[in-house]
Amino acid sequence: MKIYNIALIGFGGVNRALAELIAIKNPLWERDLGFRLNIVAVSDLHLGSVISPNGLDAKTLVEANFAKGGFGRLSGGNAEADNEAIIKTAPADIVVEATFTNPMDGEPAVSHCRWALNSGKHVVTTNKGPVAIAARELKALAKANSVHFEYEGSVMSGTPVIRMAEKTLAGAEVKGFEGILNGTSNFVLGRMEEGLDFASAVAEAQALGYAEADPTADVEGFDVRLKVVILANELLGANLKPEDVSCNGISKLSPSDIQAAAKTGRRWKLVGSAVRNADGTITGSVAPKQLALGHPLTGVNGATNAVSLNTELLGPVTMSGPGAGRVETAYALLSDIVAIHNAQSANFAKEAA
Amino acid sequence: MKIYNIALIGFGGVNRALAELIAIKNPLWERDLGFRLNIVAVSDLHLGSVISPNGLDAKTLVEANFAKGGFGRLSGGNAEADNEAIIKTAPADIVVEATFTNPMDGEPAVSHCRWALNSGKHVVTTNKGPVAIAARELKALAKANSVHFEYEGSVMSGTPVIRMAEKTLAGAEVKGFEGILNGTSNFVLGRMEEGLDFASAVAEAQALGYAEADPTADVEGFDVRLKVVILANELLGANLKPEDVSCNGISKLSPSDIQAAAKTGRRWKLVGSAVRNADGTITGSVAPKQLALGHPLTGVNGATNAVSLNTELLGPVTMSGPGAGRVETAYALLSDIVAIHNAQSANFAKEAA
Repeated sequence: MKIYNIALIGFGGVNRALAELIAIKNPLWERDLGFRLNIVAVSDLHLGSVISPNGLDAKTLVEANFAKGGFGRLSGGNAEADNEAIIKTAPADIVVEATFTNPMDGEPAVSHCRWALNSGKHVVTTNKGPVAIAARELKALAKANSVHFEYEGSVMSGTPVIRMAEKTLAGAEVKGFEGILNGTSNFVLGRMEEGLDFASAVAEAQALGYAEADPTADVEGFDVRLKVVILANELLGANLKPEDVSCNGISKLSPSDIQAAAKTGRRWKLVGSAVRNADGTITGSVAPKQLALGHPLTGVNGATNAVSLNTELLGPVTMSGPGAGRVETAYALLSDIVAIHNAQSANFAKEAA
Repeated sequence: MKIYNIALIGFGGVNRALAELIAIKNPLWERDLGFRLNIVAVSDLHLGSVISPNGLDAKTLVEANFAKGGFGRLSGGNAEADNEAIIKTAPADIVVEATFTNPMDGEPAVSHCRWALNSGKHVVTTNKGPVAIAARELKALAKANSVHFEYEGSVMSGTPVIRMAEKTLAGAEVKGFEGILNGTSNFVLGRMEEGLDFASAVAEAQALGYAEADPTADVEGFDVRLKVVILANELLGANLKPEDVSCNGISKLSPSDIQAAAKTGRRWKLVGSAVRNADGTITGSVAPKQLALGHPLTGVNGATNAVSLNTELLGPVTMSGPGAGRVETAYALLSDIVAIHNAQSANFAKEAA
């Protein structure tokens, strides 16, 4: 049985949910997946940082109600976060990057990933920024250091659409995709179908915790644009940057637009898509579209996300599931660690042979 | 670059579509997947059988309009089918089983699989019979002979739901599933929503080639029952036989049932499902159910199939795609061969190390 020592960078909702899972699921994972996870370091801008080579008790970590700088009171702790030192010096096999997404240059998460990979540590992340902006560089860096860079949770949280396409559709010839990739905007559109105006629907999403205080990234399509870049680069072999993808949100749709569509059996959806053109180039876009009954994305309701892959041999193949959520996103990190474990086990068998 | 020699057992729509793909796609597969396929034998009850150790030209095989017993006129051919001899003696790496499904004992396909596995040949099949009735035995036989038994196409044709669950959802804790697993019955229900009575909707499905002359297996749920057995055994570790799964079809639904549901935003669907009970046992069933708006299967229209996996950490994760079709089902065979190739490549690397 294998133990992976992990360092958590950021201790907000997602990494806290991962620690909660570790506190209760390690025996199950040991039995079913062949490994346990051991938290040897945590760093968080608010709480500070801590290194504990023998491992921190996950339950204590989750249940202690740390105040600002609270990690400073732990053995091996520091009231200040020092991400660089933690990433470079903690005795971790895997760095779990779950800090905030910066859509402009991906920092500081891109640096976090670079430091980890250059230190010979695997990286798993749910952070769209470094994947949308620097996946090609970081994948090359991982390869050069014989470690893995995995990021299933950067799109659709734990719904494994990236790995599904890569592990199960080889030879089906993916030609493009369309997706509902932002739960907040899809929720807002659903409430507008039920009669609310845009502002009221956004206010309700905020009250329910779906939308942030500034809902711009969700409703203007900027969040979806990063996900289109990630999926186009990953599934279609593109090399898009966010500014290459045209981007229109839903804020200009009126209740009468929505209701006019409904009268003809159609629904407005915010669709992120990419397609391979005849000349081999890839075009990505984010735009509201009227989808007819029978389109694979028309029935996707509420905060659910979905991606429909258009394939040569199968036509559309669609996966839907959660697109957000603490535990759901923490599962993405687990699924990345499973992928690393399976690849490591194969390597180990190879070396032993 | 690897060449896999394959023997086609049955030369109906599916294996003929595979031969059509081989005729045009081998160069693409060589580049993208790392192998070519070479047809070294074919056996078909109507056409006879042929063995050609250097390989048959796929294009010729597809385009020649063979009459009954027509393989007898080929070099190495025989006007009679001799499946046993072909399977045991053809110089094939992989036996591609695509004969008719026998829902009672799975024969003769179960014997075809046994002969192939005992001869040290991999088996890929789209045939529900041997998988629903003998998967456990055949998997053990494959393991004992160090070969693979793969059957993605036994459920949802080429839509890779089995491999998706196994390769991408480890640790998500699948607790059960619900599926729309028969396109004909789903098409019939859709037409009944539009006002047709059951008999007229079935007649239309027959006219369009969706339903067979005897539609019993589709509309009474027997086809779905085999798929429930396959998925329950595969994804939930059950050991169900078809007779363990309760089975009710859609023939007793009236247009007024359908329309009463529609008035409350619900839709009748023929749902195949299985669930892990508190005591660890698995219960499978096939039954028409009224699904509410928002259920992941409610929007599945026409001949599309879908499976929604209920998971502990992600909630429902749903995959939809084609459930039938010649090329779509042939793709399932290709995806099985990709899986074998990837496993063989890993083994080869291990042995070379």
